[in-house]
Amino acid sequence: MNTATLEPVLRAALGERVRCDADSLAMYGRDWTRNFPVAPAAVVLPESTEEVVRLVQLARAHGFGIVPSGGRTGLSGGAVAPNGEVVLSLARMNKVLSFDPADRLVRCQAGLVTGELQAYAASQGLFYPVDFASSGSSCIGGNIATNAGGIKVIRYGLTRDWVAGLKVVTGAGEVLELNRGLVKNNTGYDFRHLFIGSEGTLGVIVEADIRLARTPPPQAVLVVGVPAFEDVLNVLAAFTGELDISAFEFFSELALQKVMARHGHARPFADPAAFYALIEVDEASSEQAMAVFERCVEQGWISDGVMSQSLTQAKTLWRLREDISESLSHETPFKNDISVRVGRIPQFLDEATRLIHRAYPEFEVVWFGHIGDGNLHLNILKPAALATDLFFERCGKVSLDLFAMIDRHGGSISAEHGVGMLKKPYLEYSRSAADIALMRGVKGLFDPDGVMNPGKLIDA
Amino acid sequence: MNTATLEPVLRAALGERVRCDADSLAMYGRDWTRNFPVAPAAVVLPESTEEVVRLVQLARAHGFGIVPSGGRTGLSGGAVAPNGEVVLSLARMNKVLSFDPADRLVRCQAGLVTGELQAYAASQGLFYPVDFASSGSSCIGGNIATNAGGIKVIRYGLTRDWVAGLKVVTGAGEVLELNRGLVKNNTGYDFRHLFIGSEGTLGVIVEADIRLARTPPPQAVLVVGVPAFEDVLNVLAAFTGELDISAFEFFSELALQKVMARHGHARPFADPAAFYALIEVDEASSEQAMAVFERCVEQGWISDGVMSQSLTQAKTLWRLREDISESLSHETPFKNDISVRVGRIPQFLDEATRLIHRAYPEFEVVWFGHIGDGNLHLNILKPAALATDLFFERCGKVSLDLFAMIDRHGGSISAEHGVGMLKKPYLEYSRSAADIALMRGVKGLFDPDGVMNPGKLIDA
Repeated sequence: MNTATLEPVLRAALGERVRCDADSLAMYGRDWTRNFPVAPAAVVLPESTEEVVRLVQLARAHGFGIVPSGGRTGLSGGAVAPNGEVVLSLARMNKVLSFDPADRLVRCQAGLVTGELQAYAASQGLFYPVDFASSGSSCIGGNIATNAGGIKVIRYGLTRDWVAGLKVVTGAGEVLELNRGLVKNNTGYDFRHLFIGSEGTLGVIVEADIRLARTPPPQAVLVVGVPAFEDVLNVLAAFTGELDISAFEFFSELALQKVMARHGHARPFADPAAFYALIEVDEASSEQAMAVFERCVEQGWISDGVMSQSLTQAKTLWRLREDISESLSHETPFKNDISVRVGRIPQFLDEATRLIHRAYPEFEVVWFGHIGDGNLHLNILKPAALATDLFFERCGKVSLDLFAMIDRHGGSISAEHGVGMLKKPYLEYSRSAADIALMRGVKGLFDPDGVMNPGKLIDA
Repeated sequence: MNTATLEPVLRAALGERVRCDADSLAMYGRDWTRNFPVAPAAVVLPESTEEVVRLVQLARAHGFGIVPSGGRTGLSGGAVAPNGEVVLSLARMNKVLSFDPADRLVRCQAGLVTGELQAYAASQGLFYPVDFASSGSSCIGGNIATNAGGIKVIRYGLTRDWVAGLKVVTGAGEVLELNRGLVKNNTGYDFRHLFIGSEGTLGVIVEADIRLARTPPPQAVLVVGVPAFEDVLNVLAAFTGELDISAFEFFSELALQKVMARHGHARPFADPAAFYALIEVDEASSEQAMAVFERCVEQGWISDGVMSQSLTQAKTLWRLREDISESLSHETPFKNDISVRVGRIPQFLDEATRLIHRAYPEFEVVWFGHIGDGNLHLNILKPAALATDLFFERCGKVSLDLFAMIDRHGGSISAEHGVGMLKKPYLEYSRSAADIALMRGVKGLFDPDGVMNPGKLIDA
């Protein structure tokens, strides 16, 4: 639909919640992707569930699409409004509603910024453990809609694991309270888990009950150099066999060079290695971790390493890994967010590297990721001289071979960034035809008129 | 349907997998409930996914119902065949298929006994943490279909948290591989979680990828007397505020008396208390736990207590809690398996106790449960002189008031036993009408002809 048609309809029902100025349309119409058109008809910023219901009812009556929007940090175009949709921004529904200490449960609105939830947890002497580079601007509703993962998954799991209850408005305009914040509740199909990761295609998440964890003890960080990639998994097994580690991340020398150049970080130790692993452990286990480190050095798996001696130093070492994505962003990366089982990584990476060198002999390729959970980020950088369109076109073609390879290795073409528009054409590489047909059926049940985030995830 | 009609049809397609003798029908047609009719037309024991598919296709063609069946330890009638159905027993699909050490993943068939999975994990130096009284005969497929919880939920979560992948045969006869054992996989609706807890109404779980945990350090067990119920939660908060506990169970003096009388266990310490809590902690934290214990004694929350000095003694103390259910089973208990948020327990229990004393002044009422996760088991015992029918009828009437009270307190009418036939008439106390309508829609998508476990959970 277009702004001229929709604006009076929206204003009549939702008054000053509506924005149609060009700046708002441009800002609210997009996420962190840059390769999709941005053309919303309007932006609505509701302040209550009732206003969300009203907007959904209007959408059904007038046949416009709704794009739920939080912190707009998505990387798959899931919150982009490319085609006259109304952006439903949760920006004003951003409050903590209540806290239940006996159950360690926070009830909050979906627009609460992840970092603010983390801060709220800390103010209660507790801990919200899902964390990633964009947590300063992403919202909890978006985290839930994409089942966000991040850097502590190996110890704390995904967003899914911390959602004890959801309040949603379905595409039919019905309000559902899902699971009520209970630990044990065995009363039929758990639609809470259906909404987690559904990318706004079934309805709008308006509130959530989030479980908090005990505050972990202080953490120490070890960064080690690993000359041969296949030894990264030996190092992982050596550590996880003896310790409950909180993170096991990896990055290549090229990734390190990019992050040092962009952010001015110092090299962690003198001699470069082909790969690096960052391992986080309880500070109290530092000695045990050092013993594992020594054994890995003896085995020749690790060439050198450094362990943080203070919390400040631990944070500095984390920056080497956390700033990679940002350091690449100005080079127009073609991002792949993929996963295979941990045990499949060496063989997969070997094949994938060969494919990529063959396909992109002249492109810079940066690997990094959360290797402890099988999630690899593959970033292909656009040469400055190449036009963006041509670059994405070439990358898109190679993706087909890469995704077929992932499928053969039993992996996922979208580990934690979701499908959105970016991966929609390739969904068949991770889901079977029968599976996709059932997804379409479920979408039709919860969103009978197809108003919820049309064109994302699956085509109706 | 009846045996005479069905037997030739089944024999032609599935040969010696079919049993129609009276003993098999009686044995495979029921679970641990005793108050539903048992009248299957046949039993089929497939040995492969392909045979399961063949049975589902026959069911669709001939219009008979299929009741998936594992260890038959269910407590809600979910695996009872009351009306001419074919029982699909997974008893012969009971193998470990593969083990992936880097991912700590076991691929197994659904008929694998829970205790055998635990033993297999131990043989790999790992740990399968979901445990409960019936783990010696329940099967992993049934655990998944009912999202089994048990005694370690406070530390390890539910069955749901350990299922990394599922292979299912839908009611349409389609085979789906769900999630592929991946940690991170964000490619649309996670149907794995839809099947977990679906009680065989969407399809048959045939295989699962189960994640294993590191073997925990040795555990110590503390049993303490708590004179006033409301202080049980103070004791819980005192322990969870300082320690990662593995279990926090409670039982009443009457429960203790029953278990002592039936199993000959000794009283844990000399002076009886109105209530008891059983707390499990890492042995290495015993001193810290004793310090918390002392503080609780000083506060008057705990009257007395005992801590295990050996693994044998820890096991003996666990028996006081684990044998309760069995010790009541010969008294024809009317069981309620309910949950509320932990913070709601004192107020709920106060109201519930008053309701029950008013409704059943002459019945024995035994409370016990996994109080650390809000799950209470309320067992009402049949007086020897009262006819079973009349007893269940009276209990059923009071259930309506109890369930309305649970609903007011935001709880669940079935915490971990599922809905089956037992709770089906009361589902509206935990799920809204819109929610139930969507459940019915989802059922219709996965099981278009209604052949999967008809009459369980919801009516088509």
